[in-house]
Amino acid sequence: MVTQHEVSLPLPPMEPQLWGTHDEAKPLSASIMEMLEKVLGATAEQVNRIDPRDIALSQVRLSDADLGELAKIVGAEHVSTQHDQRLRRARGKSYPDLLDMRSAHIDAPDAVVAPATNEELAQLLQHCARERIAVVTFGGGTSVVGGITPKDGGLRAVISVDMARFTELSDVDPISGEATLGAGLTGPHAEMLLAEHGLQLGHFPQSFPYATIGGYAATRSSGQNSAGYGRFDEMVRSLTVVTPAGIIKAGWNAPQSAAGPDLRQLFLGSEGTLGIITSVRVRVHPIPETKRYEAFRFPDFRAGAEAMRAVTQTGTGATVLRLSDEMESAVNLSSTSAIGDSAASKNKGCLMLTMFEGTEAHTLSRHQETRELLLTLGGESAGEDPVRAWERGRFGAPVLRDGLMDNGAICETLETATDWSNLFNLKRAVTEAITKALADSGTIPLVMCHISHVYATGASLYFTIIGGQRGEPAQQWQPIKERACEAIIAAGGTISHHHAVGTDHRPYLPGEIGEAGQLLLQGIKAQLDPAGILNPGKLV
Amino acid sequence: MVTQHEVSLPLPPMEPQLWGTHDEAKPLSASIMEMLEKVLGATAEQVNRIDPRDIALSQVRLSDADLGELAKIVGAEHVSTQHDQRLRRARGKSYPDLLDMRSAHIDAPDAVVAPATNEELAQLLQHCARERIAVVTFGGGTSVVGGITPKDGGLRAVISVDMARFTELSDVDPISGEATLGAGLTGPHAEMLLAEHGLQLGHFPQSFPYATIGGYAATRSSGQNSAGYGRFDEMVRSLTVVTPAGIIKAGWNAPQSAAGPDLRQLFLGSEGTLGIITSVRVRVHPIPETKRYEAFRFPDFRAGAEAMRAVTQTGTGATVLRLSDEMESAVNLSSTSAIGDSAASKNKGCLMLTMFEGTEAHTLSRHQETRELLLTLGGESAGEDPVRAWERGRFGAPVLRDGLMDNGAICETLETATDWSNLFNLKRAVTEAITKALADSGTIPLVMCHISHVYATGASLYFTIIGGQRGEPAQQWQPIKERACEAIIAAGGTISHHHAVGTDHRPYLPGEIGEAGQLLLQGIKAQLDPAGILNPGKLV
Repeated sequence: MVTQHEVSLPLPPMEPQLWGTHDEAKPLSASIMEMLEKVLGATAEQVNRIDPRDIALSQVRLSDADLGELAKIVGAEHVSTQHDQRLRRARGKSYPDLLDMRSAHIDAPDAVVAPATNEELAQLLQHCARERIAVVTFGGGTSVVGGITPKDGGLRAVISVDMARFTELSDVDPISGEATLGAGLTGPHAEMLLAEHGLQLGHFPQSFPYATIGGYAATRSSGQNSAGYGRFDEMVRSLTVVTPAGIIKAGWNAPQSAAGPDLRQLFLGSEGTLGIITSVRVRVHPIPETKRYEAFRFPDFRAGAEAMRAVTQTGTGATVLRLSDEMESAVNLSSTSAIGDSAASKNKGCLMLTMFEGTEAHTLSRHQETRELLLTLGGESAGEDPVRAWERGRFGAPVLRDGLMDNGAICETLETATDWSNLFNLKRAVTEAITKALADSGTIPLVMCHISHVYATGASLYFTIIGGQRGEPAQQWQPIKERACEAIIAAGGTISHHHAVGTDHRPYLPGEIGEAGQLLLQGIKAQLDPAGILNPGKLV
Repeated sequence: MVTQHEVSLPLPPMEPQLWGTHDEAKPLSASIMEMLEKVLGATAEQVNRIDPRDIALSQVRLSDADLGELAKIVGAEHVSTQHDQRLRRARGKSYPDLLDMRSAHIDAPDAVVAPATNEELAQLLQHCARERIAVVTFGGGTSVVGGITPKDGGLRAVISVDMARFTELSDVDPISGEATLGAGLTGPHAEMLLAEHGLQLGHFPQSFPYATIGGYAATRSSGQNSAGYGRFDEMVRSLTVVTPAGIIKAGWNAPQSAAGPDLRQLFLGSEGTLGIITSVRVRVHPIPETKRYEAFRFPDFRAGAEAMRAVTQTGTGATVLRLSDEMESAVNLSSTSAIGDSAASKNKGCLMLTMFEGTEAHTLSRHQETRELLLTLGGESAGEDPVRAWERGRFGAPVLRDGLMDNGAICETLETATDWSNLFNLKRAVTEAITKALADSGTIPLVMCHISHVYATGASLYFTIIGGQRGEPAQQWQPIKERACEAIIAAGGTISHHHAVGTDHRPYLPGEIGEAGQLLLQGIKAQLDPAGILNPGKLV
């Protein structure tokens, strides 16, 4: 066994049972505790957290000889079968994942292996293909769609390939605004390295503190500044992918080109099923000179969304555009007031947040044109404070789920997107499906929604779902999620706007891309990964 | 033989030996004639146009029984072996294509076949796969890269599949700004149908009068308003492709999505080698309320390009941004004055054109921010007239080539793109390569360049090349083109920003996307087109 060097393999920072670390944990406020008990009938500690060290892991199916072979490729200190290393890579951070992490037994990857170069990784994948060992890529472990669940696909074992050693920033080009980032860099680490050059990536998904560059690319992540800087897939100039069939550099000799199909777009969103992304060349921009903020209140969601469509289609150029529906606006306002703001919960309607980044002249003119249009379309200014409060707390929301779960509540999010003309229909259909499914399980339903990503032709819808746990929570949740997914596809939405497909959305993908699309993907996989070792049971 | 119904198959409008029709032809001015003779030593009528009816075509290799089988699928009136039908689909409109059209013999497709539905087309492709008949897709016939040269790939014949019957506008959604366009619609026809709904596509490549929607998609076309509306590939929400393996609808249930790889991007730029695009759902927008125009003069190309980079990276939001280098600016100014403008050729430096489309408020603020930045960065206003003159004449330039060729001159264009940091290096390398190659062939070289497509991270370079014909013109041209392509790849440019790959750029593609990328494309082709019938000898 390889044990003597194991300390050099970094432990993923998030606690197995939490979003984040113990330091980040926030106790629920008394008013939320009261709401949980009185409204949702949630009974505290329905599903206790057991000590993670007491969770029994699936037996390691790799022999000492197998581990020795892996160690030959990456070095003995970069192979581990330790309990904590395996446990922290056994699940992502969906509600069902966190429920699994509260159970007495969990299936975990048989080993964790951390290569450092494309060549080591290529050798590793070829070895695994020969040896019939499945491979799950581990970046930040932030998947909320079962993207890293260690399925073996009928092979004899499954390893977690940790990308933590791919952390280089290289080829910084401040003139073009491009830089190459290692796939294992987390959001904050990448921004820190870029900041030394006065540059910024500007990609801020809620998973930012932990998620990695490779994960952003592999899942088509979308950040909260997407109105200004685009989705992550739109920022990618080229990428390097290691597949069992070889190393591919996808991307033209130019930002855009007419030199054939865009092969980048095969690997963006491929979720570790076609290859492992090891570096990504991205668009970067100067750290903005200035920011401007303004919130607006609209009488209802429809009025707010129509105004949002107008500013987006006019191209007024905000960096952030967010619109909460009535329910979410009410909850946001009370939480804002809880952190010291004077906005009172008597304010009705829907809150829209806008933010503008760039030069003084640019942000001034973008803000001006946007606000004039929003005011014309029924908005009332709500000042800067709601936007600043949101910006301060924007990565903190997932932490609240742990407290809610500790107190017997369901808490989960899911998202979709569609054309503007179908937006209200989709929102109603999904809200109804979730509401009814929650009620059928015996709890009062609390369903909130916001728009946080806009395009000229459509927008995303992001749902936050809270309820009381009833019976066996995983069994309670499963039909709720299924009915939400079915409603999304039936109402013409995409099965995921930015969370990706993973295990959880896989049954619904053919409903969106068709059997022919699915066959095409399978053929491409057969070409790149003929042994089927890459992330079995996921996307393709 | 099927002859009685042939009149119902439309004849492509462009004359075989011209860009456009006889009505569009423009005689060269006396000053250009003098320049040709004195500067380039061009001798008139070096390569005479012979009567197109006298051009001998390759023998039809399909039997009456074969033609009867094709007629069974699409109807006898939609199959033709007539001389003019075959001749007009034998070549695109590159300089070498037009030289071929002035020769006594040309290889032409064995027959022209025009299906009307996806089902007919699917049946046709399956038939051709069984019968070993190659298929070249014909849209507008505007390719300048040998994209429609009827190569048979070693199969027993090659047919031209004309898309002229796919002309439907459907599913217009003015709220989302989307519409579905048949692949056979020309630019003007599509705009006419959309205008009935108050909408516009806004895609204006130089080939606009003749090129088709399917061609735009299959070649990743980029239009002159790309700064505002994006490239054609960026406008595509979804597309329908008929392949020998079946019909595929590529595109998610949303403008963007995280539901796996983006399969649209395999068919965009596939140039008829992976399937035939039959309809495209695109982003459309209201016909703009207003337009604003302003030209600026910069002391040199470098100053102009740096200013262009600044406005693009700041995101000031112009709809059109064009910058001519010193040589092109001089020629443009003199041609502008020839059409009545008072701008004198004494004006030195480089001309930048800007145009802004949209609402009054939007164009006013976009114009203001852009002009302030350009003036700060060394630009001087040159008023509206140069932009308006360019807009009036913007589809007319290709016609001039016919007159130049009639008078013994070479006239061709080629283009590339790269990062901003590599732009001047690439421009110099390509200019030098072309200049030297022209001189080596014994003519004074005239090489002009402009930037017409900009991105945050880079820009295109478009070269216009004029010289005197020497010896056998096709043999004179070949090494010039080769040396330009080699220089592009060696200097890190893309082999084509918007003209596509076709036959002419195919040898240089592996130098850009790598052997691994090429293998991946070949594998995808083997999956979709196992018999290799689709456009052999092109892209993949």
